Amino acid sequence: MLIDRLIASIREKRSPIVVGLDPALESMPPELLEKALASGLAPEEAAAAAIQTFNEGIIDAVADLVPAVKPQVAFYEQYGPAGMNAYRNTCAYARSKGLIVIGDVKRGDIGSTSKAYSKAHLGETNIGGATYRAFEADMITVNPYLGDDCTREFMEDVKNSDKGLFMLVKTSNPTSSQLQNLIAEGRPIFHHVAEQVNHWSEQILGESGYSPIGAVVGATWPQEAEDLRKIMPKTFFLVPGYGAQGATGKDIVSSFNADGLGALVNSSRGIIYAWKKNSDMTWAQAARNAVLAMQDDINGALKDAGKKYWVSE
Amino acid sequence: MLIDRLIASIREKRSPIVVGLDPALESMPPELLEKALASGLAPEEAAAAAIQTFNEGIIDAVADLVPAVKPQVAFYEQYGPAGMNAYRNTCAYARSKGLIVIGDVKRGDIGSTSKAYSKAHLGETNIGGATYRAFEADMITVNPYLGDDCTREFMEDVKNSDKGLFMLVKTSNPTSSQLQNLIAEGRPIFHHVAEQVNHWSEQILGESGYSPIGAVVGATWPQEAEDLRKIMPKTFFLVPGYGAQGATGKDIVSSFNADGLGALVNSSRGIIYAWKKNSDMTWAQAARNAVLAMQDDINGALKDAGKKYWVSE
Repeated sequence: MLIDRLIASIREKRSPIVVGLDPALESMPPELLEKALASGLAPEEAAAAAIQTFNEGIIDAVADLVPAVKPQVAFYEQYGPAGMNAYRNTCAYARSKGLIVIGDVKRGDIGSTSKAYSKAHLGETNIGGATYRAFEADMITVNPYLGDDCTREFMEDVKNSDKGLFMLVKTSNPTSSQLQNLIAEGRPIFHHVAEQVNHWSEQILGESGYSPIGAVVGATWPQEAEDLRKIMPKTFFLVPGYGAQGATGKDIVSSFNADGLGALVNSSRGIIYAWKKNSDMTWAQAARNAVLAMQDDINGALKDAGKKYWVSE
Repeated sequence: MLIDRLIASIREKRSPIVVGLDPALESMPPELLEKALASGLAPEEAAAAAIQTFNEGIIDAVADLVPAVKPQVAFYEQYGPAGMNAYRNTCAYARSKGLIVIGDVKRGDIGSTSKAYSKAHLGETNIGGATYRAFEADMITVNPYLGDDCTREFMEDVKNSDKGLFMLVKTSNPTSSQLQNLIAEGRPIFHHVAEQVNHWSEQILGESGYSPIGAVVGATWPQEAEDLRKIMPKTFFLVPGYGAQGATGKDIVSSFNADGLGALVNSSRGIIYAWKKNSDMTWAQAARNAVLAMQDDINGALKDAGKKYWVSE
């Protein structure tokens, strides 16, 4: 099952790390767009070509170091259909390199619409009797505001296509408490969501004992993560907020179980745009170095906390 | 301002109705896809071509009857980048016919990511100094789970590009109460969201006294709509759930203010797939007839409730 492959890859690469692929032309090495524009492409096609070159360079530089990448679809959507084509090709390229792709799409809608999203990102679409995979990821992020009607529609593809979800529980942003921390029936809303995620997680477990139904838990809320770890013991956490958003290794240990597993820590800008602070190396080398530094930080913090997922020193 | 144009169009066409453009090949007249496939296009390109033909036919049939259309992006996303191109072209075609386009995208993320979504759907993207509009709608739906960090990022484009939002408050689906109706501080979560939407609405008002910051309130919850009308007096409601989801004219009157304004009622499948129940007319005629019937039903219900938005009989 996907979740077992993910855990095997974390152990093999010694790295519970996800590299976020959030392309923004203004932060990318300018020669990539310049070259694409000089070749005569229309602006949006040039943008897509520059993004693809950049992402493939990053993926090549980190593929042996991390189990997964997380393209954030908003950064592709802003470049229109050509950008969505780059999203599709980025997912495909990363999967061809053995990486697990987490499509950060934060979709969620009423039943029949969520079904269409599930087809788009996890399953397949029927076109006149032929099947077509629109934007194939291995796992996607899902918004819980609409309730179980929504989650249910993704479960068929999770089971049939060996895919996974990360439901938003406690997000990393400053105002996430506004709605998520309101107290209902004696506990915050995000605990209610966590209980529901746990319900779904328990219905589908890999040999590892973990579930492909995961939760998004921001690294910026370590105390909340500690509580959530107890509510969802078998649920993998996708942990954003490391690096550019301010969290460090010590902030993320509470997202891990005692076995050193149960979380994937994401960093996007801190890795892919590390070249801006490292003028002595290429952008790909800078990204690789940033992953290595993050790996040291996180594994060191886990070791200090007695949460070792690796077998030998 | 956009909201004033919307209200003028509602009055002129005597119709607070939105036609939802949710293309699913299996529900569309089969000859559209067959013809596109016969022309030698790749399956996903043929799907996009069939959708575009269908949507343009629907738009032509209803453009003089309704102020707005609402493409649901999930149904385009399932056909990949080609589907997203059909979404883009559908938005553009509807706008060229004087219709207000509500992009039903239900996006929402942390600040920097929501900014990218805002560029994608309301504003413009910078590509090497040139500007590009990725998927231009007039208004989009936004998910509130992440809090104000998210909403804030859309406001600049709302103001600068004369656009609007509909924030999800109380959705039409059966399990919407699961999270939305939890009671915090003595009132349901969706009231808290409504109060926040009202806060944003009051910051930007048109000459009509209404705001381009709107709310999604399902037609399937008439009592809840009545309460929400009081919490958000200046907020326009986008009301899904009419028709295929079960609501009728009498269910939607509580979403309107005493002036007969303040709501737009959406029907998707009940209009665009009306041809399936009307073998004696073309699919475009059947859609037009379904809009006329819905117009009678809704205007009749509003008249009975003493909520007339039209000036003379």
